[in-house]
Amino acid sequence: MELHLVQEEFTDYLKKIENYNEAINVMYWDLRTGAPKNGAEQRSNVISQLSSEVFEMTTSEKMEQYLTRLESEIGTGQLSEIVEKSVKECRKEYDLNCKIPKNEYAEYVKLCALSESAWEEAKDSGDFLTFQPYLEKIVEMKKKFIEYWGYTDKKYDTLLNFYEPGMTTKKLDEVFSKVRESLVPLVSKISNSGVSLQRDELFQPISKDIQKEVSENVLRKLGYNFQSGRLDETVHPFQITLNPGDVRVTTKYIEDNFMSALFGTIHECGHALYEQNLSANLIGTPLCSGASMGIHESQSLFFENMIGRSLEFWETQYEELKAQTGEFFKDLTVEEFYQAINHSEPSYIRIEADECTYPLHIMVRYEIEKELFDGDLQVKDLPKVWNEKMEKYLGIVPSNNREGVLQDVHWSGGDFGYFPSYALGAMYAAQFKHKMKQDLPNYEQLLKSGELHQIVNWLTLHIHQYGKLKKPSELLIDITGEDLNVKYFIDYLEEKYSKLYKLV
Amino acid sequence: MELHLVQEEFTDYLKKIENYNEAINVMYWDLRTGAPKNGAEQRSNVISQLSSEVFEMTTSEKMEQYLTRLESEIGTGQLSEIVEKSVKECRKEYDLNCKIPKNEYAEYVKLCALSESAWEEAKDSGDFLTFQPYLEKIVEMKKKFIEYWGYTDKKYDTLLNFYEPGMTTKKLDEVFSKVRESLVPLVSKISNSGVSLQRDELFQPISKDIQKEVSENVLRKLGYNFQSGRLDETVHPFQITLNPGDVRVTTKYIEDNFMSALFGTIHECGHALYEQNLSANLIGTPLCSGASMGIHESQSLFFENMIGRSLEFWETQYEELKAQTGEFFKDLTVEEFYQAINHSEPSYIRIEADECTYPLHIMVRYEIEKELFDGDLQVKDLPKVWNEKMEKYLGIVPSNNREGVLQDVHWSGGDFGYFPSYALGAMYAAQFKHKMKQDLPNYEQLLKSGELHQIVNWLTLHIHQYGKLKKPSELLIDITGEDLNVKYFIDYLEEKYSKLYKLV
Repeated sequence: MELHLVQEEFTDYLKKIENYNEAINVMYWDLRTGAPKNGAEQRSNVISQLSSEVFEMTTSEKMEQYLTRLESEIGTGQLSEIVEKSVKECRKEYDLNCKIPKNEYAEYVKLCALSESAWEEAKDSGDFLTFQPYLEKIVEMKKKFIEYWGYTDKKYDTLLNFYEPGMTTKKLDEVFSKVRESLVPLVSKISNSGVSLQRDELFQPISKDIQKEVSENVLRKLGYNFQSGRLDETVHPFQITLNPGDVRVTTKYIEDNFMSALFGTIHECGHALYEQNLSANLIGTPLCSGASMGIHESQSLFFENMIGRSLEFWETQYEELKAQTGEFFKDLTVEEFYQAINHSEPSYIRIEADECTYPLHIMVRYEIEKELFDGDLQVKDLPKVWNEKMEKYLGIVPSNNREGVLQDVHWSGGDFGYFPSYALGAMYAAQFKHKMKQDLPNYEQLLKSGELHQIVNWLTLHIHQYGKLKKPSELLIDITGEDLNVKYFIDYLEEKYSKLYKLV
Repeated sequence: MELHLVQEEFTDYLKKIENYNEAINVMYWDLRTGAPKNGAEQRSNVISQLSSEVFEMTTSEKMEQYLTRLESEIGTGQLSEIVEKSVKECRKEYDLNCKIPKNEYAEYVKLCALSESAWEEAKDSGDFLTFQPYLEKIVEMKKKFIEYWGYTDKKYDTLLNFYEPGMTTKKLDEVFSKVRESLVPLVSKISNSGVSLQRDELFQPISKDIQKEVSENVLRKLGYNFQSGRLDETVHPFQITLNPGDVRVTTKYIEDNFMSALFGTIHECGHALYEQNLSANLIGTPLCSGASMGIHESQSLFFENMIGRSLEFWETQYEELKAQTGEFFKDLTVEEFYQAINHSEPSYIRIEADECTYPLHIMVRYEIEKELFDGDLQVKDLPKVWNEKMEKYLGIVPSNNREGVLQDVHWSGGDFGYFPSYALGAMYAAQFKHKMKQDLPNYEQLLKSGELHQIVNWLTLHIHQYGKLKKPSELLIDITGEDLNVKYFIDYLEEKYSKLYKLV
């Protein structure tokens, strides 16, 4: 068949896959935003039917034929960039799914389901021993899978690559240790500063209706397009893309914790802006999403922390917030409000940690994962190692496994290599921000005046539009002229928190 | 292949089709309840892809093989009732789609799209002439299709059968003329009674929030299960079944027309109860829906008019309604409220007509459709004939085509044979109600005490659970011992409206 016809057929084939994915995502969104419970079981049959059809299409003989044919043309200039990169993306997915013998994969899926239940029980009781055999088996199978998938230097690198293309243990060791060298002393100085940023007033009850209005308003302010999205309430906030014209966010309203919805919304808004601003050319291809987990997280964290927790942003927004919430913040100046939302303190639970201590939580997990796959660490020793690292990095030791090694769901589902992306996001964000401030010398002024569109435009121009057309390190180099450099992140934190906590 | 294996395969095949339909319906619901507009175009690609796959599956060679094989076993006792009736349902669908040459069908689909746009324009301007050529072509093609599909006595019977299995022109002529004989004089007597039921107080503004609360409350009262459904707001109210555990209703809140949402909700609730109470055995088969359009409408109209517009129902509910709506109905006694919601008066627009004049609107359309397909009526004469019949049946003549022959969308999309079901629903409902009152001698008391579950149970036992397992006339005969008998409907209307309008 002629090459241009193969390209056309392949493109149609990918569109079909993405259409199925859109249908699945609509049903998934629906299930989480108020679908009646009695219909959920049958609904899951529908989702699972469509999901297996997607799986079949991505692993079919037909796909293999397309890939083999088109791969032979890569680099010849005969393929469009989108087709070329789609081929690479599909190959990754194909290999991921096809290199593992079917029976072993089925066994693994079953194991993960059992393991997640075991983890839930263990988490409730705090008894690691009941979870340990499942986790041991998962690690064992995952190691076997890595052999099938193949690896060059470190086994763990193969896992990292699923979430952060191009990332290696070597690179992470380097950046994480640098960050740690600065962050451990910084966190310790904050603890010993004698300064405690008052935030009691943030925990007064505010009605859901008001919180909703505030969330909608802040989304609009940040440039979220309600013609291409909607805001709903769910138990856990999330962002989901049905297509670039339908990018939805959800948040959670807690009456006596106003900040939860506010910063949850801003965080998801960062993800959503990325997806709303993807180039329309990418629709119907596997490139129509963020470059990586970490790059995606860089956008949510940039908006949540660097904008949403900046003094400049609140200098104009605070009066409106005060007006919307009535008498709520009447005793708090904007500076006090800024201090309150930047309270930092070592804590046990990762998802509740502040921006300053958060990366250290990730490093505890990273060190453990690395040692499990390429070192001598045994699953049975996890609770002990966890607590040791918590003490070393954060200066605190959880009194039980619930607040310690059992707190996250990830490992029970086999999701190793995922955690580092959370921390990488913050580092990427700081590096992008540093460059953005050079390109937009009036950056602070833009924040102060609430005119954020120039900032969003910058992100769209340099990051959003490309989707998966560029790898994380390509983005970094193209934008900032260098690969990941944690200096910017360290500088950002040291500057911000030294001021907040009056450190010398 | 062994028969039991064929049955199993066929059943799985049907499940797959129904799963696709569920996915399509979720997306359809989503589009109508607040999906952002920028994503709608790509979403329609997804819906159309899944729809064509459903079409392919229902018209595939494989389907034909299943049907041929299983049809040879019908009546041998080798097939389960569900499989046997599913085969018949699928055959109907298969023939419907496969007997027409593909190119003619494609031409027809295109024509309908153009015709609907032409109708919209014509409706705005009131100029029938611009719509006329489209309608002529549609009638012409439809006549040709009827030749392909085949017919015995009347061509129009083939069309009737799509919506009301077993219904014929002969039967409809009989029942409609009987109803007309009583209803035309009744409507005239009402007009000349000198009584005008006051309803001004129904048009005071009531906030959307209150209306929503009232709608939710009335749904609960009528036995709608919120664990198996949800209520949303849309431009046009509808009921949609995703699966029997997820049966959704929507309504429309108009601030200064409180009754619109109230009776819209009750109407859709009648449809929803039918679907929520279908037997779980039918899930995944084409039988998992109402027996016919008319039987479905009998349920919505039973609840809307016979319960929702009865004095007995409001005797307990009215106090609660008054409390929910604050001072709104303070000057209205329950009897006055009952009178207000049963105001009857000839009017031009079918969808705004009251229960007494409504059937006459349908008969205007029925007579025209019948004559178009089996008589000498020409499309060009429709406006004239329409107005003549309006005057004859309802005593009024629309002053323009917008309020006359151009008011309904149905014909522009080729939906001939659909209208009679609306009127049949009311007649079925009255016949069921008559029998129900024999089975439940305390029927009025149940209404008065607000204990509706016995009524819903009766409907479930005799109607809802069967889905499409029984044809409309089977249901009528099994339940009431006779086929459609319009005496019950006439008696119901004469009794109710003679009292309301003090007719002698």
